[in-house]
Amino acid sequence: MSKKVAIGVDIGGTLTKVGIVDREGNLFGHTDFSTKIHQEFGGYLDKLQEVIEALIAGLDFDHEITGIGVGAPNANFYRGTIEYAANLNWKGVIPFTEEMKKRYDLPIHITNDANAAAIGEMIYGNAANMKDFMVITLGTGLGSGIVCNGEMVYGYDSQAGELGHVKVFESGRVTGLGVKGGLEAYVSSTGLKRTVFALQAEMLEDSVLRNYSYHDLHGEIITQAAEDGDPIALAAFELTGKILGEQLANFTTFSHPEAYFLLGGLAKAGKWIFEPTQKHLEANLLPFYKGKVKLLPSGMMGKNAAVLGAAALVWNHE
Amino acid sequence: MSKKVAIGVDIGGTLTKVGIVDREGNLFGHTDFSTKIHQEFGGYLDKLQEVIEALIAGLDFDHEITGIGVGAPNANFYRGTIEYAANLNWKGVIPFTEEMKKRYDLPIHITNDANAAAIGEMIYGNAANMKDFMVITLGTGLGSGIVCNGEMVYGYDSQAGELGHVKVFESGRVTGLGVKGGLEAYVSSTGLKRTVFALQAEMLEDSVLRNYSYHDLHGEIITQAAEDGDPIALAAFELTGKILGEQLANFTTFSHPEAYFLLGGLAKAGKWIFEPTQKHLEANLLPFYKGKVKLLPSGMMGKNAAVLGAAALVWNHE
Repeated sequence: MSKKVAIGVDIGGTLTKVGIVDREGNLFGHTDFSTKIHQEFGGYLDKLQEVIEALIAGLDFDHEITGIGVGAPNANFYRGTIEYAANLNWKGVIPFTEEMKKRYDLPIHITNDANAAAIGEMIYGNAANMKDFMVITLGTGLGSGIVCNGEMVYGYDSQAGELGHVKVFESGRVTGLGVKGGLEAYVSSTGLKRTVFALQAEMLEDSVLRNYSYHDLHGEIITQAAEDGDPIALAAFELTGKILGEQLANFTTFSHPEAYFLLGGLAKAGKWIFEPTQKHLEANLLPFYKGKVKLLPSGMMGKNAAVLGAAALVWNHE
Repeated sequence: MSKKVAIGVDIGGTLTKVGIVDREGNLFGHTDFSTKIHQEFGGYLDKLQEVIEALIAGLDFDHEITGIGVGAPNANFYRGTIEYAANLNWKGVIPFTEEMKKRYDLPIHITNDANAAAIGEMIYGNAANMKDFMVITLGTGLGSGIVCNGEMVYGYDSQAGELGHVKVFESGRVTGLGVKGGLEAYVSSTGLKRTVFALQAEMLEDSVLRNYSYHDLHGEIITQAAEDGDPIALAAFELTGKILGEQLANFTTFSHPEAYFLLGGLAKAGKWIFEPTQKHLEANLLPFYKGKVKLLPSGMMGKNAAVLGAAALVWNHE
């Protein structure tokens, strides 16, 4: 009997990652190439097709390809398009699935990477038995994928789950979309770094972090400093977890998720981000939510989350 | 052929309203009685049954009762219970649907009044063709019913949609659940009144509203004052609409609803609340939401919204 597999494609600003995945999340061959390889979308698709064909050729078992799932910035699930993506070469509205369907007579689905991560959590991760949960991706920015009643929330025009741009302060740091006091300016890998710099101005304590320029400082250095008891690193994690915990408590009033899953670079800091977040989440929950909302690491952490999430789109819409 | 009808029951702190409604929203007889009529839940149910029987007896056409829908404070949709309702006589957990099923062999559903309003909007109101929308009820507090993918969002433990308790300011006025800076302390009929009192302290302008005690002032007086150009009334509506508009913009990042419907006492103020809310909503929307989110009066306004919403529960779960 032939084995059913899906093709997962994650289109990032720098790299496009491609893999072949079965329903259980086993990855049979994967590869990547530069997303910037071609200025034109047609040339990019030629390359993508070539890579997919090579991966399929490498499968050493009877197989049936059930579909192609794609995670991409500014993807519109309903229209199958990538629209005005600031960090990709292709301008305007790219009819992604329409063009792919000319090459593959298969179900093809596209959504943004945070939504793909949420679907991945449902299909392959720790949310297999959950109907209501959110995945929060903490990387350069803060992304979110929201599942209610067992279904991905795409919203009216496929732009639901932009919680990185919730305005949490009347004024303050600006997000990539120009929101003053927006969440991701504080809670993300970049947000943590920005906080470290703000605290270097506010605090007088010495810190190993004072040896790094803004360009040179990255998450692992801040985590290591926290491990070593560095006062600025500790204060930065505490403040980041406080803001995230308070906001997760606010988000709970929307859809009362059973759990929040954290994924991405900042989530890799482990207890340094989870402990303060958990404390401030629980402290700020309304009485009837207390003890009923879990904060968990994503089950996709350490796996090829982006490709798995994209492939999971296929299984979710089978 | 017999006509299908549903029984709608709205249990309020003061009155219980009961009506018989068809799939099109026609109301065939309705009545109400004091919710406090009996200290004991059993006695209350006897009265409710008596009222329902009388309404059914009054139907002058062939009918089939398809079910009973109930809106009640602190109702748990999944368990069919009313749990620790502060403004009802019955303490603890009341097994509402279980007890009702001993009297009626029919589908019986219960949820809170804001959720019932949202389902009413979907079945009988202005959201008939919408898959993603929210109803915001602006009365004593701020209630919310959220629909995503055409389904009511109940959440993990049936407590989704408590947006009145979103913390919008770091500190400030307290909501009924003790949230400092919580939304409904500013945006509700009571919130508007509180703002009028805060502005009487802040502003020096004379105002007709300075003739009223806190206990005597109510919404219609503030609306009339706004109609007459009263500076404090105008400033109070502007501030209320600003906070609501900003928060609706925040909420949009969650589920990207096609529309927000306003219902309840404060919504009756019409342009005085809709205009500033619309202005601040649009100004605060992320770029890709602009022009894509409607602010509308509920289609249930002026109808028996509570009973219709409760009855709509039956049709929604048929």
